[in-house]
Amino acid sequence: MSNGNIFVGEVIGTAILILFGAGVCAAVTLRYSKARAADWVVIAFGWGFGVLAGAYTAAPLSGGQINPAVTLGIAVDTGEWGRVWVYLLGQMVGAMLGAVLAYLVYYAQFRANVREVGTTEGTVDEPVPTLGIFATIPEIRNPAANLITEIIATAALVLPILAFGLTKGLGESGTQVLIVSLLVTGIGLSLGGPTGYAINPARDLGPRIVHTFLPIPHKGTSDWGYAWIPVAGPLIGGVLAGLIYNAAF
Amino acid sequence: MSNGNIFVGEVIGTAILILFGAGVCAAVTLRYSKARAADWVVIAFGWGFGVLAGAYTAAPLSGGQINPAVTLGIAVDTGEWGRVWVYLLGQMVGAMLGAVLAYLVYYAQFRANVREVGTTEGTVDEPVPTLGIFATIPEIRNPAANLITEIIATAALVLPILAFGLTKGLGESGTQVLIVSLLVTGIGLSLGGPTGYAINPARDLGPRIVHTFLPIPHKGTSDWGYAWIPVAGPLIGGVLAGLIYNAAF
Amino acid sequence: MSNGNIFVGEVIGTAILILFGAGVCAAVTLRYSKARAADWVVIAFGWGFGVLAGAYTAAPLSGGQINPAVTLGIAVDTGEWGRVWVYLLGQMVGAMLGAVLAYLVYYAQFRANVREVGTTEGTVDEPVPTLGIFATIPEIRNPAANLITEIIATAALVLPILAFGLTKGLGESGTQVLIVSLLVTGIGLSLGGPTGYAINPARDLGPRIVHTFLPIPHKGTSDWGYAWIPVAGPLIGGVLAGLIYNAAF
Amino acid sequence: MSNGNIFVGEVIGTAILILFGAGVCAAVTLRYSKARAADWVVIAFGWGFGVLAGAYTAAPLSGGQINPAVTLGIAVDTGEWGRVWVYLLGQMVGAMLGAVLAYLVYYAQFRANVREVGTTEGTVDEPVPTLGIFATIPEIRNPAANLITEIIATAALVLPILAFGLTKGLGESGTQVLIVSLLVTGIGLSLGGPTGYAINPARDLGPRIVHTFLPIPHKGTSDWGYAWIPVAGPLIGGVLAGLIYNAAF
Repeated sequence: MSNGNIFVGEVIGTAILILFGAGVCAAVTLRYSKARAADWVVIAFGWGFGVLAGAYTAAPLSGGQINPAVTLGIAVDTGEWGRVWVYLLGQMVGAMLGAVLAYLVYYAQFRANVREVGTTEGTVDEPVPTLGIFATIPEIRNPAANLITEIIATAALVLPILAFGLTKGLGESGTQVLIVSLLVTGIGLSLGGPTGYAINPARDLGPRIVHTFLPIPHKGTSDWGYAWIPVAGPLIGGVLAGLIYNAAF
Repeated sequence: MSNGNIFVGEVIGTAILILFGAGVCAAVTLRYSKARAADWVVIAFGWGFGVLAGAYTAAPLSGGQINPAVTLGIAVDTGEWGRVWVYLLGQMVGAMLGAVLAYLVYYAQFRANVREVGTTEGTVDEPVPTLGIFATIPEIRNPAANLITEIIATAALVLPILAFGLTKGLGESGTQVLIVSLLVTGIGLSLGGPTGYAINPARDLGPRIVHTFLPIPHKGTSDWGYAWIPVAGPLIGGVLAGLIYNAAF
Repeated sequence: MSNGNIFVGEVIGTAILILFGAGVCAAVTLRYSKARAADWVVIAFGWGFGVLAGAYTAAPLSGGQINPAVTLGIAVDTGEWGRVWVYLLGQMVGAMLGAVLAYLVYYAQFRANVREVGTTEGTVDEPVPTLGIFATIPEIRNPAANLITEIIATAALVLPILAFGLTKGLGESGTQVLIVSLLVTGIGLSLGGPTGYAINPARDLGPRIVHTFLPIPHKGTSDWGYAWIPVAGPLIGGVLAGLIYNAAF
Repeated sequence: MSNGNIFVGEVIGTAILILFGAGVCAAVTLRYSKARAADWVVIAFGWGFGVLAGAYTAAPLSGGQINPAVTLGIAVDTGEWGRVWVYLLGQMVGAMLGAVLAYLVYYAQFRANVREVGTTEGTVDEPVPTLGIFATIPEIRNPAANLITEIIATAALVLPILAFGLTKGLGESGTQVLIVSLLVTGIGLSLGGPTGYAINPARDLGPRIVHTFLPIPHKGTSDWGYAWIPVAGPLIGGVLAGLIYNAAF
């Protein structure tokens, strides 16, 4: 694999991941969407199938890592750090591109972004905060607890990937990609409750940058005070998984 | 593969796809159905498993493309255009056949098509509009935005198919078909909110023709003013995916 | 495969299928169940994974047909009718055994079978009709329409199975069984609305016999007037699929 | 496989299983969780994907049994009992470790564990009982019926595993692990209604021990009076499956 192939593969794969992931969050959040108010199982499967689509597409070019935490875990395992920057760069560019694509898919919905809110004087229309479509927001703001949640949830993603040898290539059938995508769905269902499971620094940081600069009407805060946790937590979790793997396997 | 095999395969495969897809829309829309009022996850998995059933059946005869956007994307990629018309013809015939089959499955439900509607004078029974069972209807009618949604959603289907080499044959295990069917479920969950995700010109146009001519009581409008968007959008998206694939891979 | 192996395999496989299928219907129907009032997606996946469990178990012994409609479709295709009776006998015995097992799993729930029903004089507890746990009940009672629904839905199951060559053996990986189980889930989601999708004569007839004889308190009618439709419809559908397969493939 | 590898593999695999499983129960139970009040399908898929993650990770080291009932069923089948104790020890240690990890993921949620409860004097906040996050609780307390439920549900897990030959190794593609994980989801949907489906003695006993000793505020009872059923039932079910397998296959 050339550096160019890796970069292009990670850009495309991560863009597709975020297109699906931010897309499903828009689908359940915005008012004029056929999936409005759908429940948590839609979010979890939407992100999982985003991994399926993104990794499946990127696999022939770059191996389909599409997550800096996975890249770091593999580097800790293999000791090969030379091309890590190419992966990370592609993942960040792709994540931003995917967020813009999701915005375009839901363009009319973002323009018409209001919801009914009950007040003491009757029902009024208010814009829905849009950050949750792009980046993660914790249910309880507690930096230490949020960080631990992201570390454990990310390690629970990267360790299975390392253990079963996705690093050794994707295989002919795509079954590995399917299983990893369902793992991500499972992490969403099981471990996503407290922080909304970034488990991928590019997934949170890239779309948050896009949210900051995109001219969405009434978009609300981009909440940069929280932004370091969904970056640091997954990076620590990925490294931790690599260390556990090297020690135990 | 002979032209006859391709035609028959695409007719059968697309008919099964639409039987499942229009079927699941009938299942959640019509009053006397065990799945009435089921939510978006049922729609998305219903269509996805329709792709599984249709492509799985058609695969030995025609490769199971069952979507003009996929056929165009493959033609742009391979440069082989000679049999494209056979695929498209089979897909259109199959889509119309499938819509008729779905109508037959829900025949008694269509005959009894009413729902309770609250009015200022109490509850009255009114027929449910039936077009949504056959064709797509946007949440917000905005031609440019709707077209962009369909283009991006279709490219997000065709690019993974090209990248992972479904064009090279289905493989022994059917895993490729399973993955593509879950991609379609994912597109429904994530990108279906604004327009109901045609992502397949035959899927929308064929059943819309059937809806126009079928003698359904109180069937409502067939909305031909919108019909060009779920045809043009997916065709553009399929070609776009072929061009991206040729440039990037 | 000896006749003994086929018989034992079909008994065990069909028993597991009905254990899961009647089980999931009990889970959403009976009051003191953790899944009470769960929606249609639970029913559809419960039956689908029942096929997975049953066919996966029976595969090494009998090929895992566990459905007379599948057995007939294969016989029409291959022209081999000599052992059809062994399959059918095993499937019927297994279906009755599975219904008894599901009853045992939910024994305490059947004993405590009541639900709150609102009346003009307040809320009273009434037993829930139990037939829907064992056999299918149409939403609209219309013999011709119900029969057509079962024929089409069953053909949509058997034709993909024939087309992709389950008849040629299960393969090493179990992927075929997984795909067929998801087809059954899809049929439930899409085509199950009108009749509750028997699509398997043994699945309906066996448990209905058990329901007739089992001493369930307040069990309600076993509705034998309807019983011929979920037997005849799937048998016709299976034969039809075999004929289509022979003509088209 | 050395005893050390088996022990480490079973510890890691069972810990991941319980992290996901207790995690999804916390996700739907605790108030400040994005998945609060999600329905039964979330529970069933969460536990299923926990099996996927745990067995997938442990497979290269220990074969990924992560369930004493599976270990016993395999021992009855193969007659090899020498290393059973290593498996059981690793599974118990892993189950306790996983419960602690799930507690850490939801630490802030456990600290803020209250829910609104309606009283005759208005709404008050009360802590939610937490045992259901760690261990199983029957809907109707009936030892004989609960035991039978657990025996049948566990046999319905172990018999398919034995029949399809997971004992002969995992295969290259991971498809076996995927299928077994969906079987567990199916058991949850279909057979989990009465007792919450332990079907794994370590899954219930390990987290119950942790619940007893962990300093969770207002944690409620650990209900040791019931604890023997989710241990004895699955052990009997696993042995029963092994005996059926030896007799029938």
